[in-house]
Amino acid sequence: MSELRKDPILDRWVIISTDKEEVDLSQFCLQEPETRRGGFCPFCYGNEDKTPPEISAIRDEGTRANTAGWQVRVVPNKFPALMIEGDLSPTGIGLFDMMNGIGAHEVIIENPSHDRGISDYTPEEAKRVIKVYRERKLDLKKDGRLEYILIFKNHGLKAGASLEHSHSQLIALPCVPIRVEEELAGARRHFEYKERCIFCDILRQEQDFEKRIILENEDFISFAPFVPRFPFETWILPKRHRCHFFEIEEKEENSLSEILPCTLNRLKKLLNDPPYNYIIHTSPLKQEEEEYYHWHLEIMPQLARVGGFEWGTGFFLNPVSPEQAARQLKEVG
Amino acid sequence: MSELRKDPILDRWVIISTDKEEVDLSQFCLQEPETRRGGFCPFCYGNEDKTPPEISAIRDEGTRANTAGWQVRVVPNKFPALMIEGDLSPTGIGLFDMMNGIGAHEVIIENPSHDRGISDYTPEEAKRVIKVYRERKLDLKKDGRLEYILIFKNHGLKAGASLEHSHSQLIALPCVPIRVEEELAGARRHFEYKERCIFCDILRQEQDFEKRIILENEDFISFAPFVPRFPFETWILPKRHRCHFFEIEEKEENSLSEILPCTLNRLKKLLNDPPYNYIIHTSPLKQEEEEYYHWHLEIMPQLARVGGFEWGTGFFLNPVSPEQAARQLKEVG
Repeated sequence: MSELRKDPILDRWVIISTDKEEVDLSQFCLQEPETRRGGFCPFCYGNEDKTPPEISAIRDEGTRANTAGWQVRVVPNKFPALMIEGDLSPTGIGLFDMMNGIGAHEVIIENPSHDRGISDYTPEEAKRVIKVYRERKLDLKKDGRLEYILIFKNHGLKAGASLEHSHSQLIALPCVPIRVEEELAGARRHFEYKERCIFCDILRQEQDFEKRIILENEDFISFAPFVPRFPFETWILPKRHRCHFFEIEEKEENSLSEILPCTLNRLKKLLNDPPYNYIIHTSPLKQEEEEYYHWHLEIMPQLARVGGFEWGTGFFLNPVSPEQAARQLKEVG
Repeated sequence: MSELRKDPILDRWVIISTDKEEVDLSQFCLQEPETRRGGFCPFCYGNEDKTPPEISAIRDEGTRANTAGWQVRVVPNKFPALMIEGDLSPTGIGLFDMMNGIGAHEVIIENPSHDRGISDYTPEEAKRVIKVYRERKLDLKKDGRLEYILIFKNHGLKAGASLEHSHSQLIALPCVPIRVEEELAGARRHFEYKERCIFCDILRQEQDFEKRIILENEDFISFAPFVPRFPFETWILPKRHRCHFFEIEEKEENSLSEILPCTLNRLKKLLNDPPYNYIIHTSPLKQEEEEYYHWHLEIMPQLARVGGFEWGTGFFLNPVSPEQAARQLKEVG
């Protein structure tokens, strides 16, 4: 039998199979991890001139910009979706509205190593990446035209990564995107009704229930959410209520630098290096500190195909319950 | 440079590349069509006992149910997302809401031929499929627990088709899904403001502009929408305003049976048999005939990967403008 579960924040239903006790992992066709694509890599040491000039970097002392010797390197996307130059100029044709593509599209090359991904990083290496995420946000926040900054990672070809060398992306937008608006609206509804942050409520309920928690440290839990769209979907939620990711404190940075690679490593071990996306969910730039929203990170393994049903309804079909997923991710550790 | 275009119905933006005159089709990695998967096919003649017993079929006279001799055959999905038996029983645990998985999940096997798809069908063959879509809707409409019926097709592994033999799916749901609600709300907003159906407005604007129209006959246009999420996205819009697909008339059935295979055939020729989804967008079952909504069919080729950006924002990046797409689809004819 299947069960329809409703997302407590969004108006989104997920159909979850609940009959099977044990998940047959082979159904996700991951008998073999993606083969190395090989060939030339513009993100490796020595090829710094093959990307646009760097925006910022964490570097060994005495090394020059756009040469080897960096630990994390930020460059503009060579094929940007949006460009930083120009003014916003909305126009229309009859029924239709348009705007020119103002914004920023940056690539964060996370590590000089071509073969290791974030799931293999030491806490020190992961911390450098998180620091750079935060610094880029604070820098772009100064540009008054920008309303929202999305930081995300595509890992593996099936999850949209066109290059193999581990990297994240940052897109800064001149408007607040609809999926963010929906999440904010859902959280606001809960707050108006209960006068509590829904994510703080979820944190408490998950800590009580225990069975969906995968890892926990002083500042974060990583858990399988009650209404996962994707098999083995995993969220990392900070215990301290803050709506903006960029308000993360030094101590939290240290904790996140542990729990993020560890969580991704569990997924890698259990599912043979699956393709995944992760996204930092955070408040719009111009929003003051709010009581109703709570930043967090969502990891979405891309193991099942999205088809007409998901596109047409916004419903998702998930053959793995989060209770099963959490148990298996805990056991693999 | 890129251009942000806003969907006139949904609060959805698409970033479209506008620099390139000619689209490099090789970027979609479709040098080779999907290889035949071979092996046993439960949808071929002689294997009727390998599916659950048929719900309905168009058959040669004198042939028995669940034997060969059918032209179109409808069976329950062997691995249904939802089941027709039982009563709706909503429950909750703390913050979370659940419901049992009531509904229907049917498979429409479109043709006995294993090797030909809907893009290859004669108008007579296509008409049988459309007739069955309509009849299944009218039959399930009698079940008062059901609120919405989605008819869709996944073609190709990348678009979510797990079997090669051409088939469509029908899912009947005990609620109106969010993506449908959003579309209805957008259309309602336009109607309240202008007192006109937005789809009728789009029809007129596209007919005036001409350059995004791919095919046209007496009752339908097929065109590249102004705000396409996917490269070569194509819509088929009836000229007669009706909110329910099941109100299609005989004459319209004939016209759709021509334009649907022809449109899909253009995509097949140009893009080497691409994976795609199509979805019939129509009103909820219990909605009276409405002035603000207008049923139509959306074809979404799955040529680009959806990554963290699309999931996180609801924005789409499309490297092909609809003007280019329509021109190339017209030329290939």
